[in-house]
Amino acid sequence: MKVLIIGAAGMIGRKLTDAILRDQVIGDRRVEALHLADVIAPVPPASDSVKITTSTTDLTDPAAARALTVWRPEVIFHLAAVVSGQAETDLDLGLTVNLDGTRNILDAIRQTGEGYCPRFVFTSSLAVFGTPLPDVIPDDFAPNPRTSYGAQKLIGEILVSDFSRRGLLDGISLRLPTICIRPGAPNAAASGFFSGILREPLAGLPAALPVDPETRHWFAGPRGAVGLLLHAASVDTAPLGHRRALNLPGISATVADQIAALERVAGPRAVALIRPEPDPLVRDIVSAWPRAFAPDRALSMGFTAETSFDEIIAAHIEDELGGSLPLHDVP
Amino acid sequence: MKVLIIGAAGMIGRKLTDAILRDQVIGDRRVEALHLADVIAPVPPASDSVKITTSTTDLTDPAAARALTVWRPEVIFHLAAVVSGQAETDLDLGLTVNLDGTRNILDAIRQTGEGYCPRFVFTSSLAVFGTPLPDVIPDDFAPNPRTSYGAQKLIGEILVSDFSRRGLLDGISLRLPTICIRPGAPNAAASGFFSGILREPLAGLPAALPVDPETRHWFAGPRGAVGLLLHAASVDTAPLGHRRALNLPGISATVADQIAALERVAGPRAVALIRPEPDPLVRDIVSAWPRAFAPDRALSMGFTAETSFDEIIAAHIEDELGGSLPLHDVP
Ligand SMILES: NC(=O)c1ccc[n+]([C@@H]2O[C@H](COP(=O)([O-])OP(=O)(O)OC[C@H]3O[C@@H](n4cnc5c(N)ncnc54)[C@H](O)[C@@H]3O)[C@@H](O)[C@H]2O)c1
Ligand SMILES: NC(=O)c1ccc[n+]([C@@H]2O[C@H](COP(=O)([O-])OP(=O)(O)OC[C@H]3O[C@@H](n4cnc5c(N)ncnc54)[C@H](O)[C@@H]3O)[C@@H](O)[C@H]2O)c1
Repeated sequence: MKVLIIGAAGMIGRKLTDAILRDQVIGDRRVEALHLADVIAPVPPASDSVKITTSTTDLTDPAAARALTVWRPEVIFHLAAVVSGQAETDLDLGLTVNLDGTRNILDAIRQTGEGYCPRFVFTSSLAVFGTPLPDVIPDDFAPNPRTSYGAQKLIGEILVSDFSRRGLLDGISLRLPTICIRPGAPNAAASGFFSGILREPLAGLPAALPVDPETRHWFAGPRGAVGLLLHAASVDTAPLGHRRALNLPGISATVADQIAALERVAGPRAVALIRPEPDPLVRDIVSAWPRAFAPDRALSMGFTAETSFDEIIAAHIEDELGGSLPLHDVP
Repeated sequence: MKVLIIGAAGMIGRKLTDAILRDQVIGDRRVEALHLADVIAPVPPASDSVKITTSTTDLTDPAAARALTVWRPEVIFHLAAVVSGQAETDLDLGLTVNLDGTRNILDAIRQTGEGYCPRFVFTSSLAVFGTPLPDVIPDDFAPNPRTSYGAQKLIGEILVSDFSRRGLLDGISLRLPTICIRPGAPNAAASGFFSGILREPLAGLPAALPVDPETRHWFAGPRGAVGLLLHAASVDTAPLGHRRALNLPGISATVADQIAALERVAGPRAVALIRPEPDPLVRDIVSAWPRAFAPDRALSMGFTAETSFDEIIAAHIEDELGGSLPLHDVP
């Protein structure tokens, strides 16, 4: 089977690539070839058994999108996006990449013709939801984005559902939880501190906490996210009908829950590295975000993610820190 | 105040034009000038007091859209669309007119600049909803369109909400009920019979009924639709926040309710002109449509429509049949 990842140079894209090369199957189908596309040149990992190709592709160019489907991959992961902060600051950029880019790849698929109907996995986001929200969001609750990023993701979902209903592709839109612990350098996203308060102390570094400890949000780890994507690539989509967007399993945790897990795994010295730095702006943004879901449809289709922050932290230590904590005594 | 109607040559556009020229005010603001735009040349009615201009405008052309906003109308009614049957048969046409056309006018507005922020009334549709549906749809129920028309309208709503949230325009999206009695010749829309079974017998003509009499759906009359549009043009939008799309008041009626009203107004000889012609295809399509709404937000903002089919039929006789039934004895 041929697999295409668009947005392959990003955080999830690289982890997904590694998982595919490790497993060499998706569902029960062997992956023979993998194409990595991103506007930033993807760096292909070595592989003996999977043929890897790459391209520097700007999805905002319809011809570039068409060039990706000529190859007729059976599975397409569409991860390319400008994320929330950028889409909010620069409306045109968000519309061009997140809306037009998505439409370009969808149009490229339907223009390929000759019965071409790939599995199309679209990374949407819980950012499609905006206040007022119930404590636990049921599957039939109306999304009302409060960011342009969320609006553009929601539009992508609608196109994926409609094109799937028409038999032009076999799509599934994953409303990913916030991915935590995001590896790498701190970034400016309003959600960044959720990762920072774990990642930095685990590396022996200080971290700022801009919100109250009782702030609650909905999370999955990077491994969980990759698992959700791979399941979406092989699950039977018949139960979805024309409703191709899914709320997903995750962990409903408060900042205090995160910190308690940090203390269990890395001890009080790690926790002591977190210093409260109240930021009313961040607090306001975050207070409008989903706190929990009851993702019944996704659960009934076998989607799973992590179930505790202890699990997420342990995976982070294994995947990012070489299996041990550099600067702490584990209690 | 300057008012622009896009899609002015259509059924609702013409009735809206007549109402504006009759009232000469919207809310408490005097209408000084009215521009009628449509891809079909609009025929301007005569008016002594309102300056009327027209243009043959194809909204799918970004430059044509920009030409409309140079005039800086304070209120824009965006009614231009290809309707459900056509959007389903021709995906490209639907995407081009309903999605790109809407985006063109939204982009034209934000490119006008210098603080231009018109009231923008977008005619969406209950077709944004698809099965499974509760008997009565609450305001926070998730839309899941089952037609490309519904999908394109929903995308338009999301853009209107996001651009409004950003202060680029002051938008409101009306999820119009099915408008009944639609005047004029029968059309091929799956919903056409809802009007046909009243309009044709009222004109002394036979009409086919493709569904069971207990089929229930959600309606407003043409006068109700115009009233909803005019209210949307002047209502305070602050209570909407970032959720600019509204489910609307209407009448939840069965076909049997419609026929009973017909009998009350036009007698048994009118009813006898309806002949059952079961059509499984139409029955399937219609069974997936909304049956009733609990439009609390719209009601709290003062939106109203008709409350009975007797009222709708009486208005039809007045507006379309010169005030009397041509071929019947009223009982
Ligand atoms: N990380 C999260 O918490 C999270 C949560 C919900 C949804 N998502 C979504 O999951 C996807 C992947 O997330 P991530 O964290 O890996 O993001 P990321 O920013 O690390 O990766 C996105 C990738 O898309 C690429 N890209 C941007 N514009 C492009 C263009 N015009 N053409 C081709 N490629 C382009 C970027 O170069 C980048 O490599 C994104 O769509 C994101 O919106 C992420
Ligand atoms: N009638 C209903 O039951 C109903 C219900 C819900 C929503 N709506 C919506 O209300 C609006 C008006 O409905 P209507 O019944 O008057 O429809 P209509 O078909 O009578 O009018 C639509 C008008 O849009 C014009 N148009 C189409 N493409 C155009 C383009 N590219 N540029 C400029 N104009 C273009 C058409 O020429 C037509 O005059 C539509 O958006 C429709 O989708 C109608």
